[in-house]
Amino acid sequence: MTDKPTILLTGFEAFGGEHINPSREIVLSLDGEFIGAHRVVGAILPVAFAPTLPLMEALLEEHAPRIVVALGQAGGRGELSLERVAINLVDARIPDNDGDQPIDEAVVTDAPGAYFSSLPLKAVQSHLRSIGIPSALSFTAGSFVCNQVFFALAHLCATRWPATRAGFVHVPWLPEQAARHPGQPSMALETMIAGVRAVLECTIATAADLRIAGGTTC
Amino acid sequence: MTDKPTILLTGFEAFGGEHINPSREIVLSLDGEFIGAHRVVGAILPVAFAPTLPLMEALLEEHAPRIVVALGQAGGRGELSLERVAINLVDARIPDNDGDQPIDEAVVTDAPGAYFSSLPLKAVQSHLRSIGIPSALSFTAGSFVCNQVFFALAHLCATRWPATRAGFVHVPWLPEQAARHPGQPSMALETMIAGVRAVLECTIATAADLRIAGGTTC
Amino acid sequence: MTDKPTILLTGFEAFGGEHINPSREIVLSLDGEFIGAHRVVGAILPVAFAPTLPLMEALLEEHAPRIVVALGQAGGRGELSLERVAINLVDARIPDNDGDQPIDEAVVTDAPGAYFSSLPLKAVQSHLRSIGIPSALSFTAGSFVCNQVFFALAHLCATRWPATRAGFVHVPWLPEQAARHPGQPSMALETMIAGVRAVLECTIATAADLRIAGGTTC
Amino acid sequence: MTDKPTILLTGFEAFGGEHINPSREIVLSLDGEFIGAHRVVGAILPVAFAPTLPLMEALLEEHAPRIVVALGQAGGRGELSLERVAINLVDARIPDNDGDQPIDEAVVTDAPGAYFSSLPLKAVQSHLRSIGIPSALSFTAGSFVCNQVFFALAHLCATRWPATRAGFVHVPWLPEQAARHPGQPSMALETMIAGVRAVLECTIATAADLRIAGGTTC
Repeated sequence: MTDKPTILLTGFEAFGGEHINPSREIVLSLDGEFIGAHRVVGAILPVAFAPTLPLMEALLEEHAPRIVVALGQAGGRGELSLERVAINLVDARIPDNDGDQPIDEAVVTDAPGAYFSSLPLKAVQSHLRSIGIPSALSFTAGSFVCNQVFFALAHLCATRWPATRAGFVHVPWLPEQAARHPGQPSMALETMIAGVRAVLECTIATAADLRIAGGTTC
Repeated sequence: MTDKPTILLTGFEAFGGEHINPSREIVLSLDGEFIGAHRVVGAILPVAFAPTLPLMEALLEEHAPRIVVALGQAGGRGELSLERVAINLVDARIPDNDGDQPIDEAVVTDAPGAYFSSLPLKAVQSHLRSIGIPSALSFTAGSFVCNQVFFALAHLCATRWPATRAGFVHVPWLPEQAARHPGQPSMALETMIAGVRAVLECTIATAADLRIAGGTTC
Repeated sequence: MTDKPTILLTGFEAFGGEHINPSREIVLSLDGEFIGAHRVVGAILPVAFAPTLPLMEALLEEHAPRIVVALGQAGGRGELSLERVAINLVDARIPDNDGDQPIDEAVVTDAPGAYFSSLPLKAVQSHLRSIGIPSALSFTAGSFVCNQVFFALAHLCATRWPATRAGFVHVPWLPEQAARHPGQPSMALETMIAGVRAVLECTIATAADLRIAGGTTC
Repeated sequence: MTDKPTILLTGFEAFGGEHINPSREIVLSLDGEFIGAHRVVGAILPVAFAPTLPLMEALLEEHAPRIVVALGQAGGRGELSLERVAINLVDARIPDNDGDQPIDEAVVTDAPGAYFSSLPLKAVQSHLRSIGIPSALSFTAGSFVCNQVFFALAHLCATRWPATRAGFVHVPWLPEQAARHPGQPSMALETMIAGVRAVLECTIATAADLRIAGGTTC
């Protein structure tokens, strides 16, 4: 560990019948890279509910990052999804990689119903559009391990590391995955890596988020 | 007002360039109907952020309902959306009917990040499927007035009416609306009315929700 | 059989794991109805490749219709699909109800590659929009029995009944079908019946189709 | 021109408000490349109805290609679309780059209603899946200049160059295009180039197409 400010970037192991997880590949690619003065530290998380919170806590204690971006795979989406909300609810459609399938449980008992991303998501989306990376603001990170990690991360930041800015980005399937899912969109790994790097650069460069409409009409 | 237990059912005025709102039509149709021993009281809300909370509070004080189901239009969706989460965030893509367009504000300052529906949504969805009404569990009610109403309602129940069960259901465009939106799904008013009636019936009949998986895989 | 001009309206039996076919229900509902001076004669076709052409030929010989509209179910579509093209190709993803699964065969050997609908589809779509029925012009009726019937019908008209106007309309799943297909759109039977009646009315009333753009940008 | 067998690969100029066309970029990248013993000759076509047929005829006369693959952009699709059918119909939703907007006209008067691709599309799709490139068999190339080029090409091959194998492949928007179209899928140029190269390789290697189901269920 150096004196450089640290960015923690997490991804996941493969799950759900897939043999690869794009979030893992992005993290392996950016691990150790310097973005301005910040050093990226990568970590690959298991797709499992039980170890999520202690694992994330250990990572935050070890690296004391200024910024944390957790990545996860959202098969069927075609853009980088800038997640706005982590909810205090787990409802697993399939078992996790440890065989656990919690239904309608809290991520953290007695914690709030939701946390919001503390990344400057509107500045990020505006930047991604300007450099030609498809992205969308998203109001749901689902109810599987991705949301669990996002909520655990946000809860830890809210309760122990209030100065840390943290968020979650869902990424599409890779082309090699979508090739086996007829009709589904994908994104090349290179596009994802450029996009995630841009998320980090923009977060470093942006103190206060833009105040532009990014919501829905329903 | 009678001694009968009351169900409050709310819908909205038209907005967003539409001349009709299916949620309003459903409410007008079911207003005054008895569902078992429960009497349905309908109310039409303005599509406006500012008056939402006091209006909902006045309705709860006046009717003391045992169940509240708020309805709203979600153009582009093809099923009844059983909303699970109300978030404490407003981000309006378009101005409301009063010309207000709040961006990235809380619905209620110092309230939790989210509330969850207290309707038995999995029992409801199972029942809707059994009677042939298309429905989906949804993790986002958006960030416009619908979510504002849902959050305000849930906040009022959490803080003042804890015994009241409350939730939100988004409904598709009517065919006559979708006819002007190429490629978009719709649902007949009769199907919606049957579906909302079934939501109410099932809620009355169900004390504890089913414990079946209904979540996502991402 | 009377002296009244006849409209032949065909639908299909259920197939593909469904227990009902909306095209059949529409035909049963409109069979025998008078539309202006025209009498609707309904016929239900088997979902089978082999008997299609002789069956359609027998129907045309028996009824000598001025107009023929064949209906079929297109699960997953949300609007009435006004089919523009019947192709001389069969490629069945699943076996038909007789167990036949032809792959990459012609519907009629030595016939042209395609026929076009002779219904006034742009006038029809304009009319449907004006009465609030969702519809779309479609460039593909697929490669299963629906397309087979459409092509056989168009071929018979082209070669033996040139004065008969003929076309095909795909209809969505009914709500009770879509309720078992998560995320899929549907349409109420009443909306479909009103839509098909309007197709027939507009066809009777329209000698020359409107000349308005209805195509694609790719 | 050499004695090597030639593959003609065509793309289009930008149109429809875009500043780039992925089909053009793919052609520029593969122009001059050798695929086995075959040399790729690239040509960029105008997005214009009037000059299509004579231009394609001149290209076929000049290069006498054994294989012709025409490429075009299909904004909104997320996979390589292996087009099966070219229809003898033009219906332009927007004007072409010369300002022409033909409505409901034939591509070639007195020609058949449609031609089918003579590329081994099922072998190609199977190969693309095996190397991880998302693709789909498509029954419609639309009714704009893409279909016009496909039909003109197929008509010329049918009438003057029967030994030439010819087809059309639609490609998605590039990420930089989709970044300005919320919710729309895209594909990286590198993925498209690898995919089109694989289309050519598989076509060269395949004399008779696979006989596997690739159709629809409606």
